[in-house]
Amino acid sequence: QTLVKGQATRTGVTAISPHGGNLFQSKVPAGVHPANAFGKAAGFLQVSELGNIETPIVLTNTLCVGTVVQAVVDWTLRQPGNETVQSVNAVVGETNDGFLNDIRTCAVRPLDVFLAIEEAEAGPVAEGSVGAGTGTEAFGFKGGIGTSSRVLPEDLGGYTIGALVQSNFGGILTIDGLRVGEALGQYSYREVVESSGGSCMIVLATDAPLSPRNLERMASRAVMGLARTGSFMSNGSGDFVIAFSTANQLPDDELYTTRNEELLYNEFTSPLFLATVESVEEAVLNSIVTATTVTGRDGNTRRAIPIERLVELIGAKEGTTVSYTH
Amino acid sequence: QTLVKGQATRTGVTAISPHGGNLFQSKVPAGVHPANAFGKAAGFLQVSELGNIETPIVLTNTLCVGTVVQAVVDWTLRQPGNETVQSVNAVVGETNDGFLNDIRTCAVRPLDVFLAIEEAEAGPVAEGSVGAGTGTEAFGFKGGIGTSSRVLPEDLGGYTIGALVQSNFGGILTIDGLRVGEALGQYSYREVVESSGGSCMIVLATDAPLSPRNLERMASRAVMGLARTGSFMSNGSGDFVIAFSTANQLPDDELYTTRNEELLYNEFTSPLFLATVESVEEAVLNSIVTATTVTGRDGNTRRAIPIERLVELIGAKEGTTVSYTH
Amino acid sequence: QTLVKGQATRTGVTAISPHGGNLFQSKVPAGVHPANAFGKAAGFLQVSELGNIETPIVLTNTLCVGTVVQAVVDWTLRQPGNETVQSVNAVVGETNDGFLNDIRTCAVRPLDVFLAIEEAEAGPVAEGSVGAGTGTEAFGFKGGIGTSSRVLPEDLGGYTIGALVQSNFGGILTIDGLRVGEALGQYSYREVVESSGGSCMIVLATDAPLSPRNLERMASRAVMGLARTGSFMSNGSGDFVIAFSTANQLPDDELYTTRNEELLYNEFTSPLFLATVESVEEAVLNSIVTATTVTGRDGNTRRAIPIERLVELIGAKEGTTVSYTH
Amino acid sequence: QTLVKGQATRTGVTAISPHGGNLFQSKVPAGVHPANAFGKAAGFLQVSELGNIETPIVLTNTLCVGTVVQAVVDWTLRQPGNETVQSVNAVVGETNDGFLNDIRTCAVRPLDVFLAIEEAEAGPVAEGSVGAGTGTEAFGFKGGIGTSSRVLPEDLGGYTIGALVQSNFGGILTIDGLRVGEALGQYSYREVVESSGGSCMIVLATDAPLSPRNLERMASRAVMGLARTGSFMSNGSGDFVIAFSTANQLPDDELYTTRNEELLYNEFTSPLFLATVESVEEAVLNSIVTATTVTGRDGNTRRAIPIERLVELIGAKEGTTVSYTH
Repeated sequence: QTLVKGQATRTGVTAISPHGGNLFQSKVPAGVHPANAFGKAAGFLQVSELGNIETPIVLTNTLCVGTVVQAVVDWTLRQPGNETVQSVNAVVGETNDGFLNDIRTCAVRPLDVFLAIEEAEAGPVAEGSVGAGTGTEAFGFKGGIGTSSRVLPEDLGGYTIGALVQSNFGGILTIDGLRVGEALGQYSYREVVESSGGSCMIVLATDAPLSPRNLERMASRAVMGLARTGSFMSNGSGDFVIAFSTANQLPDDELYTTRNEELLYNEFTSPLFLATVESVEEAVLNSIVTATTVTGRDGNTRRAIPIERLVELIGAKEGTTVSYTH
Repeated sequence: QTLVKGQATRTGVTAISPHGGNLFQSKVPAGVHPANAFGKAAGFLQVSELGNIETPIVLTNTLCVGTVVQAVVDWTLRQPGNETVQSVNAVVGETNDGFLNDIRTCAVRPLDVFLAIEEAEAGPVAEGSVGAGTGTEAFGFKGGIGTSSRVLPEDLGGYTIGALVQSNFGGILTIDGLRVGEALGQYSYREVVESSGGSCMIVLATDAPLSPRNLERMASRAVMGLARTGSFMSNGSGDFVIAFSTANQLPDDELYTTRNEELLYNEFTSPLFLATVESVEEAVLNSIVTATTVTGRDGNTRRAIPIERLVELIGAKEGTTVSYTH
Repeated sequence: QTLVKGQATRTGVTAISPHGGNLFQSKVPAGVHPANAFGKAAGFLQVSELGNIETPIVLTNTLCVGTVVQAVVDWTLRQPGNETVQSVNAVVGETNDGFLNDIRTCAVRPLDVFLAIEEAEAGPVAEGSVGAGTGTEAFGFKGGIGTSSRVLPEDLGGYTIGALVQSNFGGILTIDGLRVGEALGQYSYREVVESSGGSCMIVLATDAPLSPRNLERMASRAVMGLARTGSFMSNGSGDFVIAFSTANQLPDDELYTTRNEELLYNEFTSPLFLATVESVEEAVLNSIVTATTVTGRDGNTRRAIPIERLVELIGAKEGTTVSYTH
Repeated sequence: QTLVKGQATRTGVTAISPHGGNLFQSKVPAGVHPANAFGKAAGFLQVSELGNIETPIVLTNTLCVGTVVQAVVDWTLRQPGNETVQSVNAVVGETNDGFLNDIRTCAVRPLDVFLAIEEAEAGPVAEGSVGAGTGTEAFGFKGGIGTSSRVLPEDLGGYTIGALVQSNFGGILTIDGLRVGEALGQYSYREVVESSGGSCMIVLATDAPLSPRNLERMASRAVMGLARTGSFMSNGSGDFVIAFSTANQLPDDELYTTRNEELLYNEFTSPLFLATVESVEEAVLNSIVTATTVTGRDGNTRRAIPIERLVELIGAKEGTTVSYTH
């Protein structure tokens, strides 16, 4: 169960909307964690300063960030109710899919962004070689979009946390500690340390009433989920995390006033932090097991992970991630 | 009007308590800004992470921070109601008064800290060559402790903001733009750029219901007040700011729960930011005009600013800081 | 004397190039300071992570950042020698000139960016109502682009530091401590605290061999220059600083190697920090005294500061900024 | 092979010295990463600002940080050559061992610190229930001090990286993905999310010529090693990392000058980052497998992990960590 409005599957673009209303007029609390800021993500600094998001989050490739930022701004300006808006902070993430994608052509058009935002809807999220994950790769296999979520027990708050990742990085794929990557020929240790890496964009959503500060703390746990899958945040891996809550939405009013917010204490964030680690770990794995083989520019091909062999490998041990539940 | 519980005037130590109760059991929201972190201030990182203060803030000299941290911990452990406490984050600031103080003797004793905390009381704050400001200097004159505050008009919220500084840095003293320092022979431009600087500890208190994030933003404005007095944050000037609010105190309870906080919107923080800049500017100036000449180790002497000549200089222009009010 | 390659004066866009060669192939060390990150500046996080700049810095208005980012990326991809480049971090700053500029039309086109970059040249920098400063305002007067620089004495290193600002913020204009703004009817204190502010983009250039860490420290001093002119970094003032050095340029080679860098010690940065404060202060003032009256959308007009009255006011006191030299 | 001078095994204190000379006179480059700054670590902010360490790093328990800071300052002041030193930044880390240790007695004395520093020597590092790890616990088992290191192949630079941890946190112990903790009855998932956590101090040492910025980046990878062992950085887990290099030592001279540093490019840091993740993972596991059962205050006992059962569990799968080599 995800909390986001949904994502569209336009090639090259994935849009996530925290809710279905006018986001600029009803912003959501948010925090960011630029774990390895070797990347071109836009809008993160304002989120950090003001503690909120006012546009959909759109993921794309490295060289199309400018086009997507402008399209998100244009789209926001045209929304009913925003007729007098003069400032928009577009939140855009990216990873570099230049092996499959002819990235220098900057093929994403504004229309792709508009349609992705408009098509976003609640419900199951398309995973694998879709949207901004069409051309990405992870651990030498085809990667893409993956999601996962956890629901806390009622007496721990009953909150939901969901993760969506755009996986595109190196390392040796590890599932529940099994070095699946080596067994499947992707990669040797040597190749890993020499490869220049890649990136992972991570979006976290929750209905827990967290302050921007605690959303930032939650975001910082996401890299621990990455770590469990085999990532080590290589120099070239631009890993950015953004977390938002659907609680305590902020009306863009102009009254000189305070307002009441219901906020969770620091002391009760630990279950959410653990759920974050697990959701991100599983979302990365889901992005790989759902991805399909893609052939791109110059005939470059990135193969999907061989599921049958993977099941064999995992079958030999207890507690596989595929059936990973709590 | 200051909001702090008060400060004691023990030589070498100044204590500020956000309120008169048990701080550990009723923490206050806080934020920090280590503007130039060349300093030994303790406890700032936890304040940044958790957004609150749980002990009095104690100021001292550079080489006594350890003693003071331990004394604040010991004192907190002994407070009624803290019998089972096993973790205390002591907030301690410092500047280096080694020209007047025989600093290598580390003369501050635990008893000095206990007494400073116990003697703290509401009401007018002692300024000048007192407490942690006994041996400090600013702009070549005797510096020390200074305070100032502003009250916002009712329709801007009516909030109070107070600043307390321990001034101990270089530059050319500037009052309302007048380079008083040059006129009074302290310093030439040349001496300024060659001198290795000093530091300023700044404590901000407000009753405005700010989140820790906005307290951190408020803290970052304090350096703009410093700048107006002639500081340029030299390499050696360890300038740390800590800001707390007396609103939204946090009971240290153990229920699994959320709670309501009344919080000011981002949009309405500007008046508080301006009040911060002005309070810090005035607090620095007050620390100098109230300081008295001190002779310290090895006969070293730092003279108080010659008030009569200062008044003459300022009298030649309109809008002096001495009568600076709103 | 500025170190930058220069800027073009295309309406709505200002381009600064650290040197005249291929920046991507010969990056320059850099650091950033997002003093108040309420803004849409792009590329700052990667600069912070990797410590360098690989494109010209382009300034524009708030709602055109996307277009400008994309144009800088496209331009970089087309430079000779960059035929295989697949990742570009465009550095773009902005302020909001929506009072004069019909900002919602997003009128900046890619061609404006290309021409601005190509036209950039060494030599005197156009100031006032030009480029990205065409529509900006400061302290209620017409603002714009301003620059200033300082050269250190030979025995302090002989280094040059230059500042370029895009001024667009509120407060009461203060020149050498004189509240010029009040005397000239812009503004009352009341208007200041109620106004929602504005922003200032600040670019610092030096030939001093500073590490990215010390460039970041230098950038953090820029706000002290702002403070001296009357800014208090209101909530709405997105104040971003970026500093680069022309020393220790980084070839984009692929050898597995270390390299030698000549770096200035921490201890010798103070003169550069003071020069930063003064350059930024003067650059802001220059942006105002050189700006011309502009009438924009809907007949909105922002008047230039009345120079003759300003000279009268300043003439009444010693040591004016207009003749401010060292 | 560790690079550190060594550690002493005084109960309650562990000292690490980057080299055997006068550290204050020959500082080492350093960077920090306060991953979860819920902790009382001292000296980290100055390391971040200036990029170096000037004292040994001493680890202790939460409530003795003040005493240890003061002892490190006193010790440094007394070293030959430091007769005129007036400012010392003591670097002290801590975790909370209050279950076994009668922590409120603050039993660490200055002499314990002096002896620990003096006794530090090169060579094998004592692990397990020693020094600052005497009373710590991890994953419900007895924890303590653990170390590990990696040496890169010659053609990747041949650098060494070493990690030393003071393990003291919760989660389900995971070795190569095997949830050993559950199998051994420590803990259930439920206990984990409800427990308030603990902390981990991590010290990284390398001979790679990294700038302080890249040491900071290396430090940020350490939490990925933690993650692989089962940590999720719970709210209460104060996880701090400090990394230093023995290359490019900084003489504390007073000449107005630059100096040459040989620095590794960003592009070649990835192997060091992977080595960091692996070293920290292994150091945590070593801290547990070498720890012995300890009975402390009030008869509280924390048992060592049952090695024989552990070997049985691990024996059932390939590639155990105990024989983990590259």
